[in-house]
Amino acid sequence: MSQTPPSASRVNSADAALRARAARVIPGGMYGHLNTNRLPAGYPQFFTRAEGCRLHDADGNVVIDFMCSWGPIVLGHHHPAVEDAARAQAALGDCMNGPAPVLVELAELVVGLVPHADWCIFAKNGTDATTTCVTVARAGTGRRKVLVARGAYHGAIPWCSPSVAGVTTEDRAHLLHFDYNDIASLEAAVEQAGGDLAAILVSAFRHDFGLRQDLPTPEFARRVRALCDETGAALILDDVRAGFRLHLGGSWEHLGIRPDLAAWSKAIANGHPLAAVTGRDRFREAATQVFTTGSFWCGAVPMAAAVATLTELRRIDGPARMRALGQRLREGLAERAAHHRIGIDQSGPPQMPSLLFADDPEWKRGSAFCVEALRHGAYFHPRHTMFLSCAHTEADIDAALDAAEAGFRHLAR
Amino acid sequence: MSQTPPSASRVNSADAALRARAARVIPGGMYGHLNTNRLPAGYPQFFTRAEGCRLHDADGNVVIDFMCSWGPIVLGHHHPAVEDAARAQAALGDCMNGPAPVLVELAELVVGLVPHADWCIFAKNGTDATTTCVTVARAGTGRRKVLVARGAYHGAIPWCSPSVAGVTTEDRAHLLHFDYNDIASLEAAVEQAGGDLAAILVSAFRHDFGLRQDLPTPEFARRVRALCDETGAALILDDVRAGFRLHLGGSWEHLGIRPDLAAWSKAIANGHPLAAVTGRDRFREAATQVFTTGSFWCGAVPMAAAVATLTELRRIDGPARMRALGQRLREGLAERAAHHRIGIDQSGPPQMPSLLFADDPEWKRGSAFCVEALRHGAYFHPRHTMFLSCAHTEADIDAALDAAEAGFRHLAR
Repeated sequence: MSQTPPSASRVNSADAALRARAARVIPGGMYGHLNTNRLPAGYPQFFTRAEGCRLHDADGNVVIDFMCSWGPIVLGHHHPAVEDAARAQAALGDCMNGPAPVLVELAELVVGLVPHADWCIFAKNGTDATTTCVTVARAGTGRRKVLVARGAYHGAIPWCSPSVAGVTTEDRAHLLHFDYNDIASLEAAVEQAGGDLAAILVSAFRHDFGLRQDLPTPEFARRVRALCDETGAALILDDVRAGFRLHLGGSWEHLGIRPDLAAWSKAIANGHPLAAVTGRDRFREAATQVFTTGSFWCGAVPMAAAVATLTELRRIDGPARMRALGQRLREGLAERAAHHRIGIDQSGPPQMPSLLFADDPEWKRGSAFCVEALRHGAYFHPRHTMFLSCAHTEADIDAALDAAEAGFRHLAR
Repeated sequence: MSQTPPSASRVNSADAALRARAARVIPGGMYGHLNTNRLPAGYPQFFTRAEGCRLHDADGNVVIDFMCSWGPIVLGHHHPAVEDAARAQAALGDCMNGPAPVLVELAELVVGLVPHADWCIFAKNGTDATTTCVTVARAGTGRRKVLVARGAYHGAIPWCSPSVAGVTTEDRAHLLHFDYNDIASLEAAVEQAGGDLAAILVSAFRHDFGLRQDLPTPEFARRVRALCDETGAALILDDVRAGFRLHLGGSWEHLGIRPDLAAWSKAIANGHPLAAVTGRDRFREAATQVFTTGSFWCGAVPMAAAVATLTELRRIDGPARMRALGQRLREGLAERAAHHRIGIDQSGPPQMPSLLFADDPEWKRGSAFCVEALRHGAYFHPRHTMFLSCAHTEADIDAALDAAEAGFRHLAR
């Protein structure tokens, strides 16, 4: 797996040349969450190759990756079972006048894996899935208000985008806010919604950009469920980022709390473009009434990839494997930081770690650490959820810890 | 190309079995525009194989297809240049921590092909592209009102969905309506918007479900452009359905009218999931401010497929080829209908034909015709835009006309 030893020398001329060309034909040089302008200087924008947990940039630098494409890569790039399934389906047909039989196979697999799921719908973006959940909840309840946690990310169209550019007041007219894990604020928002509460929309855990990650408290999760039961509102779990990485049945299974509707994407097909909505029978008729579709939503290749991905995750107990790997990373980082007497704050589930530094409100120390670790062959993120994959090995974690050691040493100087 | 001669016998037992399974795990048995419940009885829901312009259903029936997956398939299924490019990119990497260099190549290609385009952004759904256009127009103008034609389809989320299930009044608070090709109604809507007009959003032509298709009149197109110029609003061309099929530079190029922003998807990558927004420099900064993204929007495989698709369409002058094929189909249908003294109404550009029947407000005659033609090996649609591809041959058109002949004979009886 280690094609190239981590190297402390980086030449970014090919990346810089691509960025100069991109700046001419793409607004801001890049769109969305993969814009490297959101990372410290030194991170590459373009990638030429991926294999397992390793990425190659345009200048030939190879890194052990802890972003996994911001979530989708759960078995590692070019996983043979996934790619064989995708190729076999591609040889038959992909985008046709209707779905291939693999649609039914995948829907049955998901309904079998996810306890609350009586049905599912497939889409392309996480935003498609969260938006469909909200629309189905409104159609099914005949109500309008949706409660969301302050600062939570649920997608990138006007009703939920973190940017307000081009957004009108009406796009968010029926959103009410609470603070994640804060039962009093949740109850106040439910009160405010009165008889018009359609749904409470919650992320699997609090994974807001730049902040420490908080797991849901059992009390909070139970209260969300109870308030939905009392009011008849839908509990929508946004499992786009965490789904299939923490638990194959949904990220609140360990709490014993099940949603009425859930949004999935990211890891479902190991990087092939797919999203899903699952729901209970109570919302089946509403889901039939809502018109939700896209030109490629019946594409069979990503569905075949999803069947292979979920089957493999189940076979190897992927979530447990990623948890163990994440735990090894977490302990190694803690040990090395302590050795250098550097205060760090690791949070979130081990499969999806966050690493912040003490007294670092502007992420300056985190950025300096990450840039140095990157130069030594590990791709961490100073502000966002990171991701483990099943393709990481214990040796990869240890090699990444050596790269992190360079980062800590740099900070200690 | 003709693996199986058209056959008048159809057994739908495998399709029925799949539909029964799907009904248990998918709301309504299928979601969106590819739900066969929207077609006459006898149409298959599932497809097992596709090659060129031919589709195989689960029962082994083979048809010459005139829906092209409702638009995406423009060079035919399994076009070698497209699939070779997709496979080559897949061998390197697809969904990574940033785009591959092919993003830049594709953006430069699109900006080179499309005269109004100074920049572009890639997405996954047509709805992503239209929504981004509207949001960018609002961000760039600081205004809110968007004019849309009554009955036009611009996507499937609450602001634009043809269904109102789960939609709130506020989702459409800033839409104002006009009638396509009706200058007086357009001017009235502009008047109504007053100083708050952000954009006029127009389809490439009027292709509303179940109605005859109307090409834009030159007067109408010029008036749309002039009103945008006078008010400072953005002219948004929704070229999702027609783009790259009528003209590689945009579907209003033949009128000499260029938009400020355009939405593309469908045919851009011959069935691989991709959409695009193009725009003028005037809206570049606004496009930088709007946060528009998705987990798979940097996927490199569909971009490599798009480069190959657009390059091949340019090399062979795909739009001209599809126009000639569509013209042959149109003339053949007219001749055979006249022979049977059946009144038909063919409309739309030859590459995207519509076939309606006289005195058929509920599409009953159209449905009967289509079912009979399907039994004889041609997949037409009784109510929706149809699509030619470059994989159709003159012999395929003639074979489809023989299947249509069976449909006309059936109606004449």
